[in-house]
Amino acid sequence: MTAELRVDGDRLWSRLAALGEIGAVHGPNGERGSARLALTDADRDGRDLVVSWMRDLGLEVSIDAVGNVVAVRAGSDPAAAPVMVGSHIDTVRTGGWFDGNLGVLGGLEVVETLAQHGIVTRHPVAVAFFTDEEGARFQPDMLGSLVYVGGMALEDALDVRAADDGARLGDELARIGYAGGVPCPTATAPHAYFELHVEQGPVLEDEDVTIGVVTGVQGISWTELTITGQSAHAGTTPMRLRKDPGYVAAAITTGVRAIAHEMGGTQVATVGRCEFVPNLVNVVPSTVTMTVDLRNTDEWLLQQAEAVFEALCAQLAREEGVTISRRQLARFEPVEFHPEQVDLIEATAQRLGHSTKRMPSGAGHDAQMLARVCPTAMIFVPSVNGLSHNIAEYTHPEHITAGADVLLQVVLAAAGI
Amino acid sequence: MTAELRVDGDRLWSRLAALGEIGAVHGPNGERGSARLALTDADRDGRDLVVSWMRDLGLEVSIDAVGNVVAVRAGSDPAAAPVMVGSHIDTVRTGGWFDGNLGVLGGLEVVETLAQHGIVTRHPVAVAFFTDEEGARFQPDMLGSLVYVGGMALEDALDVRAADDGARLGDELARIGYAGGVPCPTATAPHAYFELHVEQGPVLEDEDVTIGVVTGVQGISWTELTITGQSAHAGTTPMRLRKDPGYVAAAITTGVRAIAHEMGGTQVATVGRCEFVPNLVNVVPSTVTMTVDLRNTDEWLLQQAEAVFEALCAQLAREEGVTISRRQLARFEPVEFHPEQVDLIEATAQRLGHSTKRMPSGAGHDAQMLARVCPTAMIFVPSVNGLSHNIAEYTHPEHITAGADVLLQVVLAAAGI
Repeated sequence: MTAELRVDGDRLWSRLAALGEIGAVHGPNGERGSARLALTDADRDGRDLVVSWMRDLGLEVSIDAVGNVVAVRAGSDPAAAPVMVGSHIDTVRTGGWFDGNLGVLGGLEVVETLAQHGIVTRHPVAVAFFTDEEGARFQPDMLGSLVYVGGMALEDALDVRAADDGARLGDELARIGYAGGVPCPTATAPHAYFELHVEQGPVLEDEDVTIGVVTGVQGISWTELTITGQSAHAGTTPMRLRKDPGYVAAAITTGVRAIAHEMGGTQVATVGRCEFVPNLVNVVPSTVTMTVDLRNTDEWLLQQAEAVFEALCAQLAREEGVTISRRQLARFEPVEFHPEQVDLIEATAQRLGHSTKRMPSGAGHDAQMLARVCPTAMIFVPSVNGLSHNIAEYTHPEHITAGADVLLQVVLAAAGI
Repeated sequence: MTAELRVDGDRLWSRLAALGEIGAVHGPNGERGSARLALTDADRDGRDLVVSWMRDLGLEVSIDAVGNVVAVRAGSDPAAAPVMVGSHIDTVRTGGWFDGNLGVLGGLEVVETLAQHGIVTRHPVAVAFFTDEEGARFQPDMLGSLVYVGGMALEDALDVRAADDGARLGDELARIGYAGGVPCPTATAPHAYFELHVEQGPVLEDEDVTIGVVTGVQGISWTELTITGQSAHAGTTPMRLRKDPGYVAAAITTGVRAIAHEMGGTQVATVGRCEFVPNLVNVVPSTVTMTVDLRNTDEWLLQQAEAVFEALCAQLAREEGVTISRRQLARFEPVEFHPEQVDLIEATAQRLGHSTKRMPSGAGHDAQMLARVCPTAMIFVPSVNGLSHNIAEYTHPEHITAGADVLLQVVLAAAGI
């Protein structure tokens, strides 16, 4: 009975550890992380290792023009499109073992479990890793999957320059041997796409839930504000004569917190950057630069949040006599995953006896690009202390195994026997 | 009639310009400022020029052990203590022509006017400049007058090291030839002390008043806060799970503004420094460092402001789940000037036909040290745009003349004929 099939959690953990050792970064308290920035030598070594595992499993490996790697296990129906699982294996400079890697190596574990039990699915099963998901070296992030679905021209992607050393992406691809011959964007969309990923947030751990059923990806609105007032002596300038951009920045910060609280739901609001000039204890600042990060799973609600934020800025500028200039740093609409695939993940996890929670993803993932071309959904497993992009990133082995079991059963259901 | 006596405003202005040319700093828009950090070569050149003027006027010049210079014009009563006027002639790195210099050169103008009209006062008239008022090179500020009144031991003052090059104050005094032989602290307190100074704030200009009658100096309370929360992903961390020190810093900033507004009077509150770590658009900060500057002319009210501020910090720390560590950077009690001398300045200015306003000083001055040993008061004249410690510092010539006329008449009244 395929419904009883389970992955080998130890084997999956061993692969995560082996890949994690490439570009290893060890922390002072025993943390074990990785630094494999996209298209560096470390990324090449990681790719080579994963491709060797793909070949060992007898998969047909293809590399496309932007370096995305797809390994296919044939199905019984020669005309059927593959059910794809995957993610990325590049990391940020202080990356962990799990972010991205879990979706790819979890996919290999699914394939190896099927092979071990001699199960042939109707649809082929493909395991993919996409180039430069992190965007830590080449902007934008999710570049490989974006090109894969036709969202960015291949030539433009190849011409992107690295933030660190200015290297051209196409040149770096060729240098590490991953400028493949398969056309990109892909000629054939997958039948479906599933991505297993660590949550990178604290919700599942906080609520003691094992499986996050990801309903979509939040829309993102990033704004940089430059607030210009009048530098003044902190002792000799009465309050009524001040034009204090630091006060306005503070009122905006508490104001966007209030927006998130009043809207509730998935709305979040963050002021992550704030810089005072001249930044002296006894001088009212002349200028403050700050950023506001607004996110919501609903585009209409995100626009509401933006409108309230904009009105707040205008009101504060008027009241305090400062000027506020605005620059949009990023704006992405929310993505909704495929309702039937989301239901499938939820029902499967519950059948396997796991607690579940429907939740949006607050971070971006390759899945949001794949959602443009095929039914897509994601599975989250808990992140200890919500940490990610941090060498202290960790997910308990039993949660890794649980997530891979759900992935296996979802793939079986979607690929058919 | 001495009541009709007036200074020569052009002569005073010429001296201000000549002293301003020593260590001259010229701005791109025609601004003319000075850089004469304490006990540098430029300070020595400025001192030499002012001492030469003192000698030209026939004054008896003495230099004390911390470099304070006092020039005395004898009175008719050999037993009477001098009425002292003065200030300082060191500047900050981007100083103007007026801050400090006006009080000293205004004093010389008073003496020259008396001499010109052959007026001998009963009390001697002394013109003083005190070492290192600005504190821009040697901490603390107002060092020379502090030692003069016995508030700091001479040996400690001589051992202070320069913030820029680590030079010892005593060595620098000797190097520039201003380690004098007169004991310090002074053996004989002045009969009274008057200091003419630019306001360094916007109030007089804003209210179109010529003479500020300074009632005292605000008490100052400086606190540095280090707020530690939990760094977190701006997308994946729900609002209810955040421990955001940036939000707490903002709530403190708007909170201390509210304290100032609710208390009214002379209470001011300023957040001049604020630094986020790691200061990234999509990361809830882990730590924020900020300063809070509270000032009031009334010690009891200043303590009230501190108490409300402290309670606010405790409440916010509890509500948000952050820790706040506090460090006191400075704490000075308010100084009240001598009521009769304050009344004298006000009545004199009004008799001369000038508009007046009683006001506290928000900045520190040598007068607050002299107030410990003799009846003291200050005269303010308007600063254009409230600017000071800035090469764009400016005071209109007619206001300079008005202030010096008030100083002359006040000295006449206090010194007697």
